[in-house]
Order: sequence, then C-alpha cells, then structure tokens
Amino acid sequence: MNITIIGLGLIGGSLALDIKKAFPQAVITGIDASTQHLEEALSLGIIRQKGILEDVRDADWVILAVPVDVITKVLPQVLDNVGEETIVFDAGSTKAAICRSVEKHPRRRNFIAAHPIAGTEFSGPSAAITGLFNGKTNIICEVEKTAFKLQEKALELFKALGMRIRYMDPVAHDMHIAYVSHLSHISSFMLGKTVIEKEKDERDIFDMAGSGFTSTVRLAKSSPNTWASIFSENKENVSAALQQYIANLKNFQQLLDSGDYEGMHAEMENTNRIKNILNGIK
Amino acid sequence: MNITIIGLGLIGGSLALDIKKAFPQAVITGIDASTQHLEEALSLGIIRQKGILEDVRDADWVILAVPVDVITKVLPQVLDNVGEETIVFDAGSTKAAICRSVEKHPRRRNFIAAHPIAGTEFSGPSAAITGLFNGKTNIICEVEKTAFKLQEKALELFKALGMRIRYMDPVAHDMHIAYVSHLSHISSFMLGKTVIEKEKDERDIFDMAGSGFTSTVRLAKSSPNTWASIFSENKENVSAALQQYIANLKNFQQLLDSGDYEGMHAEMENTNRIKNILNGIK
Repeated sequence: MNITIIGLGLIGGSLALDIKKAFPQAVITGIDASTQHLEEALSLGIIRQKGILEDVRDADWVILAVPVDVITKVLPQVLDNVGEETIVFDAGSTKAAICRSVEKHPRRRNFIAAHPIAGTEFSGPSAAITGLFNGKTNIICEVEKTAFKLQEKALELFKALGMRIRYMDPVAHDMHIAYVSHLSHISSFMLGKTVIEKEKDERDIFDMAGSGFTSTVRLAKSSPNTWASIFSENKENVSAALQQYIANLKNFQQLLDSGDYEGMHAEMENTNRIKNILNGIK
Repeated sequence: MNITIIGLGLIGGSLALDIKKAFPQAVITGIDASTQHLEEALSLGIIRQKGILEDVRDADWVILAVPVDVITKVLPQVLDNVGEETIVFDAGSTKAAICRSVEKHPRRRNFIAAHPIAGTEFSGPSAAITGLFNGKTNIICEVEKTAFKLQEKALELFKALGMRIRYMDPVAHDMHIAYVSHLSHISSFMLGKTVIEKEKDERDIFDMAGSGFTSTVRLAKSSPNTWASIFSENKENVSAALQQYIANLKNFQQLLDSGDYEGMHAEMENTNRIKNILNGIK
C-alpha cells in the first residue's frame, strides 16, 4: 500500500499517523514545498521517505493537504501522473474551485473531493496528532464523478479513521462552511487584533483575561497560509457572512448605545438556543 | 462563621461550595429573587437556609453575586444593615458604578470591591462547581477604602479559595475588561446569531460545524440577565471596544473583497502573537 501525501502540516501529518496505525503495512511518501517540514516529518516518523510529484504514478493513494489555492494548481498535475487505480483525495476547506479545477480532466474519476471537518489551531508537522479524525464528519462532494470501485475503497479508508461521511454539493458546501467555520476564524483573528492593539501593555491581558477570551480567540493562532488561501478561494461566501456578522454587531451596538437593556436581552436570549445546536457537535 | 450570599447562580453558588469546603464550620444563608433558585440551592446543599436582607446584621461575611445593576441597588442597603465587623464583597464584572454607589456610605470601609475572573457559560445554582476560583485572578478595586483589618481577613478567604490578587483602579478595570472579556461575549453572541439566522435547517450546522465554531460561539450560551446588565453598566467602554472590533472586521472585509491575499496574510500573521499572550492565561 503506497501512499503519497502532499503537504505535511497538521492535516497531512495527522492523516499519515492515523493511516500508519490503521494500515501498518502502508509506505508513506511525503512531498512538501518546505524542506524544513519534510525533514521534520521524517524525523518525527510521519513519513518513511521524501518523494517527487512523478512518484504518484506508483501510488495507491495520493492525499493533497496543502492550502486550497495550491490544491487547485497541483491536483490537475497529480491526475496527469496517476495510474488507473490510484485514488486521489484532498482535504481542502473549500470545494467548488477544487472541483472546477479538474472538471474536464480525463482522470476525474480517480479523484474524491473531501473535506474532513477536523483540525486544531496549530500547524506544521509537529502539530500532527493521532485520532484527529475519529468521530468527525468528512464531507464528500460530487461523489458521482468518482469511479465506483474507488469510492468503495476510499470509504473503507475513511471508516478505518473513524470518519462519518456526508455527501454534499460543492457550491452548497462552500456557502455553509463560510458560516460555520470560515467566519469563526475571522471573528477570532479580529478579536485578537482589537485586544492586542488596545492593550499595548500585555500584562493587563495576562492577568485579566479569563477562559472566555481564551476560547473566543483560540482560532487566532491558526496558520495565515492556510486561511488566507481559504478566504481567497471562498471570497463571495465569506464576504456575505462577514457582512451579516458586521450588521448584527452594529445593531447590537445601537441597542447598547441607546441603553436598550430589553433589546440586548432579547438578542442574547434568542441566541441562547445555540446551546441545543452545540449539543449536537463533538 | 455566618455567611450570607445574595445571588445563588454560577458565581454565588460556586463561592458557597468552595467556602464550605475550606471552612466546614461556615453556615451559609442564601438570598435570591428567584424562589426556584432558592429551592434549588437548598436541595443541592449549596446553602443551609434561606434568609432576608435584614439577616446581614448577624453575618461575618456578605457576598453579592447578582447582576451588576442589581449590585448597585442592593449594596447600599446591605451596608445600611451590616455590623461593625461584617465584610461585604461583590463579584461583579464591572467596578466603577458599584464603587460609586457606596462612595459616601458611612460603612464604605466594610466593603471590598472584587471581580474574580472566573466563570463558565452556564448559569443558575445547578451550574455551581467546586474549584472554579482556584488559580484565577481576583481584581480588587479601591482597596485603600476598606478597613485594613477587614482587608486582611478577606485576603485570607480569597487565598483559601486559591485566588491570585491584583489591585486596580475601578475605571481602569472597566476599560480593560471591556476588551478582554465583555467584547468576547458580544462577538460570540453575534456569531451565534449570524449562523442561526443563515442556517434555518439546523442539521447543516450539526454536521458541518467543528471544534473551531464550538469554541468561538461557546459564550453565546451565557446568561442574558448577567450580560445585559454588564453591558449596560459598562456601556461607553464596551461600545468603544465594539467600534474598534467592527472597524477591524470591515478592514478585513475590504482586503478580502479586493482580493488582497498578502494583506489578509499580514493581518493574521500580526495577530498570531496572541499565541504568546494566551500561553500566559490559565
């Protein structure tokens, strides 16, 4: 079982660790634009060997876990090189542009567009952890465009890693994910920015910030490479979500400025039902 | 050791549990506007008995853990009734208005203005947990206005509960806390609102939201009573923080809309140093 993983960060590295555990016979080859990441992945035992793009010819599996704008460029090249039975999947957080990038490719049937909803705020090979995908949702787009036999094999792999599968249209995926994931990252980054700007003397933050701030600002530790790429690829949806978020914040500020206690209370009470929604999330 | 706790929610209830553990001889009397909360607190063993405001005459300690706008009303009445040696402290998340409410009170020296930076997103007596204050910062304002002997006793109690003490001017407290705590709550509530509004079919949220969304939206479960009161009492500071947050979000949206990958990347990279700041927070 030959597996080539392109991109050895949090996601690619964690996939490697889980695959090695589930399939001890797997030989994992790594490709990464960063020599440092390659060396780290080798020394951490995440990959067995370094590879080059042409190696995918002999791979049973090719996994793309690079920033989404890189996926749209590299995926067609990967498909140019794969064998008849190679299964290629990506782990990108946007799906429409990636699906479009190989729409007409003669090897489109070798590709599965996937988005495992899993991650942490850390990045790079050293952030890789085992069990990251266990119990998590993996969204698969345009499954009908993948060869049936390869779908079956891929589902076996995803199942071995503990993932729950959901099928979705790539355009719908990108719209929904803008709200439930991408927007959270911007809200967190800008919250961090606002507080850092204000609190030049960081001791005040250390002492006064509690677990609430830690929780809301956690995603501001995330990788700028990963996220600038995601926001660029999903620009229209993210901008629409951000627009609505800003409008809601402005509305709340008006209630605050006009001393409308009841109005603020009602806004928060209505939103409290997020409790029930969150109970459904791992 | 007679202790009267006014307000038996998350904070008052958790203080009761920790005090009972540290001082098993303590007799805790509870006062709450909600009969249901009183009964709950009794049946959960948080308090030994129900009381009325006039009971504070015989109390060694009186703790106010009600919404901050209620503190400014009840605190003067409490001080009207206390004995010479009674120590009164509050746990409110704003400090300036509370300090002003008893500025000229003849029993001002019996009061310690405190803000233990601790909490969860849950509320009511059933949310009370032991150890909530262990290792947390307790901000004390205008300590010089409290009788020295009572300061000493209060510090012993706070120490027994594991709190770290920080002294601060109430006006500075309210300004800083608007950024590192109050703003987080609004960002989280409005994020929750934005996503709920968009996702009428909540199954999409269940399936697609990951740990990042859960983390950023956690505070949207918080009590509207507590927070409408805090925002009202700290209106100017919260509005200024919100103004800056909205400006930063708009600026990010402009970078996004104009396709400025580098600009978005730089914004996020600059904010990544929140990593170092967060490392200092429990």
